[in-house]
Amino acid sequence: MRAEIITIGDEILIGQTVDTNSAWMGQLLSSNGISIFRTTSISDTKDEIIAAVDAAMQRSELVLMTGGLGPTKDDITKHTLCEYFDTPLKINQEVLERIEAFFAQRNRPMLEVNVQQAAMPEACTVLPNKQGTASGMWFEKYNSILVSMPGVPYEMKGLMTEEVMPRLQKRLNISAIYHRTLMTQGIGESFLAEQIADWEDKVRAEGFGLAYLPNLSTVKLRLTSPRGEEDATRIEDLFQELEERLPVHVFGRDDVMLEEAVGNLLKDKGITVGAIESCTGGELSAKFVSIAGSSAYYLGSLVTYTDALKQKMVGVQKETLVKHGAVSEQTVIEMAEGGRKVLDTDYAIAISGIAGPDGGTEEKPVGTVWMAIASEQGTQTRCLHLGSNRSRNIQITVQHALNTLRVKVLAEHA
Amino acid sequence: MRAEIITIGDEILIGQTVDTNSAWMGQLLSSNGISIFRTTSISDTKDEIIAAVDAAMQRSELVLMTGGLGPTKDDITKHTLCEYFDTPLKINQEVLERIEAFFAQRNRPMLEVNVQQAAMPEACTVLPNKQGTASGMWFEKYNSILVSMPGVPYEMKGLMTEEVMPRLQKRLNISAIYHRTLMTQGIGESFLAEQIADWEDKVRAEGFGLAYLPNLSTVKLRLTSPRGEEDATRIEDLFQELEERLPVHVFGRDDVMLEEAVGNLLKDKGITVGAIESCTGGELSAKFVSIAGSSAYYLGSLVTYTDALKQKMVGVQKETLVKHGAVSEQTVIEMAEGGRKVLDTDYAIAISGIAGPDGGTEEKPVGTVWMAIASEQGTQTRCLHLGSNRSRNIQITVQHALNTLRVKVLAEHA
Repeated sequence: MRAEIITIGDEILIGQTVDTNSAWMGQLLSSNGISIFRTTSISDTKDEIIAAVDAAMQRSELVLMTGGLGPTKDDITKHTLCEYFDTPLKINQEVLERIEAFFAQRNRPMLEVNVQQAAMPEACTVLPNKQGTASGMWFEKYNSILVSMPGVPYEMKGLMTEEVMPRLQKRLNISAIYHRTLMTQGIGESFLAEQIADWEDKVRAEGFGLAYLPNLSTVKLRLTSPRGEEDATRIEDLFQELEERLPVHVFGRDDVMLEEAVGNLLKDKGITVGAIESCTGGELSAKFVSIAGSSAYYLGSLVTYTDALKQKMVGVQKETLVKHGAVSEQTVIEMAEGGRKVLDTDYAIAISGIAGPDGGTEEKPVGTVWMAIASEQGTQTRCLHLGSNRSRNIQITVQHALNTLRVKVLAEHA
Repeated sequence: MRAEIITIGDEILIGQTVDTNSAWMGQLLSSNGISIFRTTSISDTKDEIIAAVDAAMQRSELVLMTGGLGPTKDDITKHTLCEYFDTPLKINQEVLERIEAFFAQRNRPMLEVNVQQAAMPEACTVLPNKQGTASGMWFEKYNSILVSMPGVPYEMKGLMTEEVMPRLQKRLNISAIYHRTLMTQGIGESFLAEQIADWEDKVRAEGFGLAYLPNLSTVKLRLTSPRGEEDATRIEDLFQELEERLPVHVFGRDDVMLEEAVGNLLKDKGITVGAIESCTGGELSAKFVSIAGSSAYYLGSLVTYTDALKQKMVGVQKETLVKHGAVSEQTVIEMAEGGRKVLDTDYAIAISGIAGPDGGTEEKPVGTVWMAIASEQGTQTRCLHLGSNRSRNIQITVQHALNTLRVKVLAEHA
């Protein structure tokens, strides 16, 4: 099935917004065996929309469109689609009720423009949007399908996973390309490739596709079988082989997030955790809490950004700070051990570093980060040497902290 | 001048790479008065390239193309362009010398594929690439210009700024489109549009373009002048008018982030802040720390995720928790006031809520969030009623907390 994507909105054309929707949809569709052969971004004017839609409908069997819907701007897209598909707009009672409920739940007044969002083209199948007030629309013409969705990413994603993909799968009897992903952390792409060169030769000889997908300190290994699900067992065997070879780096399968893998491990083992953060400023704690159900193992944290709070909250000795500095192995050990007592957790992770872009010295350049993990079995420390990008340094540090915790817990609770 | 962008590469179509090149070029061109009316991503096959290039050359006076060049893949694009422009490939001596120098400088061996990178279409003007070995190419046909550049972002950027823009500026005598952005928080797109309907009519009557760009609880208002920078003062006046009308919602200009605007305000006023977080789990603290230099005003936080830590760390009364629950106005007041003393800050923000997706009750459904901000002048509370998406609830809560702090600080430090 040939598919293409059209994104509508001047904010994309003038570069105020990067088009992440197309990439997300491209991933989802290609992993379901639908190949995207073109994506187009256009401005939200009637002529541009008609020209792009008409060309796409004649070329492709599936056209996914995002953007150009919403209370202040849906006029153009919706009216243009009505004109193109030769159908009138009509208030849809079900949609109206959903919009009313949306505002009622949020205790917010509903305006006339929101009522107008319930006006839907008669010829389309309405796709309910659980995340917002702009519904999706599914049209058919010339044996092609056109789906129009709002451009707000989480609304589009909700519509794609809950409405569009199930319909496509039913309609097309998709024989999915089968692929699975092995998640690794803390090993660079080229280094990983070198370590598993023989394994890679083997899987390629067996006809599998292999892709390295790096992101921050995580590299996903995606193995694709052209033969479909019959290869499931073989892929699992191949993944287990890597897992045994790289136990420190392999943390999961199939796009599980590291914080989720760590959370599941803690829950399984009945272990509680807390954090004492300085340069990461609460980001590690927020990662724990981002997982629903985290209260089963995550109890709380102290963000001791100043030296005064490091002393007051977790009892770091003044002499330690004076002698070794806030960014030092000695300080993170005292933070972790002191914090573990205060928070009353099984494990406590302490982090102190120079996130950047400034603030480094010759001895401790920007990107120097110390971490310590304290447990009943003892305290383990680690030093990272990162770059000068503040936000990247924080994100990478948090990933390393989570993975170091994972490895320590596995070693101590075999 | 009508311009469009074509990006070549399967990695974009299957979503492995997000197309940031188009956004960057869109910004550069639109700030120079060239309007991009379409961007297209295609796969690197001859048929797709010819179809896309031919349609673009007939529609637009400027076609910028990235990708499909480079030692392992430039064959298809370069040969296809030769075919389309009916011109042969020929080794270009100047380019060859540049490539040889490139490898000599890096002490790396030069391969035959690199020599082939010096083969250039005879009909094009070669644009020297100082960052790499794939040259840019400038073609003209049908009164239109086509520029082909490598897809590596920093190579493309070098070519755009050093070669393409200067040529375009000379050729076109460009008058730049001028736009500025006003940032608002905590007011929905449709509600905002209603409140400023008269202002919107006025600016449109004056010939300005206006766009609403919503994201979470922020809406950006983008005002565009077709007349260029001469409208700078008028736009500033128009923005000030809105700022006076909506002081609670307008927090800045030109894509400043809310956490940055709040940080600047705190620094200006010499005010310190800390947080006591429950359902947001450190995300608010991490937002403060994400800004370089935040140690000037942000001191630290307590993430009291359990009831026990709410009592132990900040002295929330057991009776309060039993009688009103952890998610209540009374609890967040005690968290904020107790936390302000512990952290020894001028302002303290406390947040407790049900982030979801589960855990709600009839009385307190998922999405109920209480926050309190304590200062010397008193404690202010606020209740949010959000949806059931955990990560969204956390993000929106943090934005509301930052903006509520901003407004309180402004009121108390006029």
